[in-house]
Amino acid sequence: MGITENELERKMPIGVFDSGIGGMTVVREIMRQLPNERIIYFGDTARVPYGSKSKETVTRYSKQIVRFLRSQHVKAIVVACNTASACALEELERDTDIPFVDVVRPGAKVAAQTTQNGRVGVIATRATIGSDIYTTYIRRINPDIQVIGKACPLFVPLVEEGLWQDPVTDEIATRYLSELIDIDIDTLILGCTHYPLIRATVGRIMGEHVTLVNPAYETARKLKKVLEARSLSNPEPAALGTSQHQFFVSDGADQFIHFANSIIKYGILSAKVIQIEDY
Amino acid sequence: MGITENELERKMPIGVFDSGIGGMTVVREIMRQLPNERIIYFGDTARVPYGSKSKETVTRYSKQIVRFLRSQHVKAIVVACNTASACALEELERDTDIPFVDVVRPGAKVAAQTTQNGRVGVIATRATIGSDIYTTYIRRINPDIQVIGKACPLFVPLVEEGLWQDPVTDEIATRYLSELIDIDIDTLILGCTHYPLIRATVGRIMGEHVTLVNPAYETARKLKKVLEARSLSNPEPAALGTSQHQFFVSDGADQFIHFANSIIKYGILSAKVIQIEDY
Repeated sequence: MGITENELERKMPIGVFDSGIGGMTVVREIMRQLPNERIIYFGDTARVPYGSKSKETVTRYSKQIVRFLRSQHVKAIVVACNTASACALEELERDTDIPFVDVVRPGAKVAAQTTQNGRVGVIATRATIGSDIYTTYIRRINPDIQVIGKACPLFVPLVEEGLWQDPVTDEIATRYLSELIDIDIDTLILGCTHYPLIRATVGRIMGEHVTLVNPAYETARKLKKVLEARSLSNPEPAALGTSQHQFFVSDGADQFIHFANSIIKYGILSAKVIQIEDY
Repeated sequence: MGITENELERKMPIGVFDSGIGGMTVVREIMRQLPNERIIYFGDTARVPYGSKSKETVTRYSKQIVRFLRSQHVKAIVVACNTASACALEELERDTDIPFVDVVRPGAKVAAQTTQNGRVGVIATRATIGSDIYTTYIRRINPDIQVIGKACPLFVPLVEEGLWQDPVTDEIATRYLSELIDIDIDTLILGCTHYPLIRATVGRIMGEHVTLVNPAYETARKLKKVLEARSLSNPEPAALGTSQHQFFVSDGADQFIHFANSIIKYGILSAKVIQIEDY
């Protein structure tokens, strides 16, 4: 008896992309929750940040990346980028037959289900807050929930500099979060892929009565459900280490590897630079 | 008697460009030192940062911007961007007949002339430090000078968040500058267009015996000399305020105006978004 088409499909990798390196927190969660799956990651480090670019440009870039990932024979794609999720998701889903999981809707859903007092905070980049994407999705689920967004522009550079636990990050976080504390939210979405790395700091400042929602975690959970529903999960355990995963960037492989290795506990051996404009 | 060609030329504006908003510190110095001159500024806010892009890409972008500025009939162009100065200057100068003034060489020259103990520090973005551009120019003037570069990646976000005088900026600056203090430099180049805005903090930490070189100031001085040498200075006083100046960006006009108004004392009334790819 030969190998069936579905058996082959189940062994295909998951594509994950982000405008840069933040999507690696989503990769980490997928590795934890779906250890059998191989990952092909693309970080658009040459064109980061997407947040300041127009919807048309972000959609064009995202389509190039999807074409690249499909050339690697992925069975599903995770849009691990808030801006691409907000700008391009609907058009990507319309064009492609494989399933997409984005990084916004899973967190929005859990937040809407979690809040008791109807006041949900969102911390994110200025672009994500400006897009009102979390507000839109949460209000679709429950129009009575009040969503309070707070842009935290210094968090990304602080995280990228490795100051995850540092008095400077404490001080900046205390300033950013004070108004959310004043408003008495009971649920807070970490609305940027970098923020899970300062989750401990944010949690300590907000206090135990505030539930933190980590979209990276919820995205991996959603991916697991989607794969199971479509009989696409890989039933076989993956090889040890990350050798089965592959990492691609559009620029700055060394800097990517350095940051990625600070997130993923076992080392990422290499990352390859590709010309994404060619796709 | 009619108006001579040179009289017309002298009234033409100065073009200034940067990858984003940092070049406004150069604009501020030109306004101070050459109050008769009109300025056309372009900030490539949609494609910032240039530091992570290849030399070819930065050159292509810079050429587009030069074509746009020339369409505005400028008599000289100031490249108020360290990356564009490092990557594209020679090619731009080869293609164009009007004078170019860059932001790197004037500061490098003054630093080489200033140091007494032959130890010059440069603080800048990771990209500028990685390019070794200041080292190259200083060593061309005096190969015996030791140039010590220190990347300060958090300074740009701290400046853009307005934390020019803030305990957090003090703390971060103290960390970044400690190794330059240990090496006993006597001259320090503020090698990023954002840094003049935290000059006071840097100066206090380095101490009085260290001379700070502000490339924005030296660039405006160089521009003045170039215009005088070519008989291109405008002899007539400009109108009051900034109404004679014009500001263009490739995205995010509101955010540009907000930052620009924090630098330039009299208000910038407006900024126009243009499609720079069309040039």
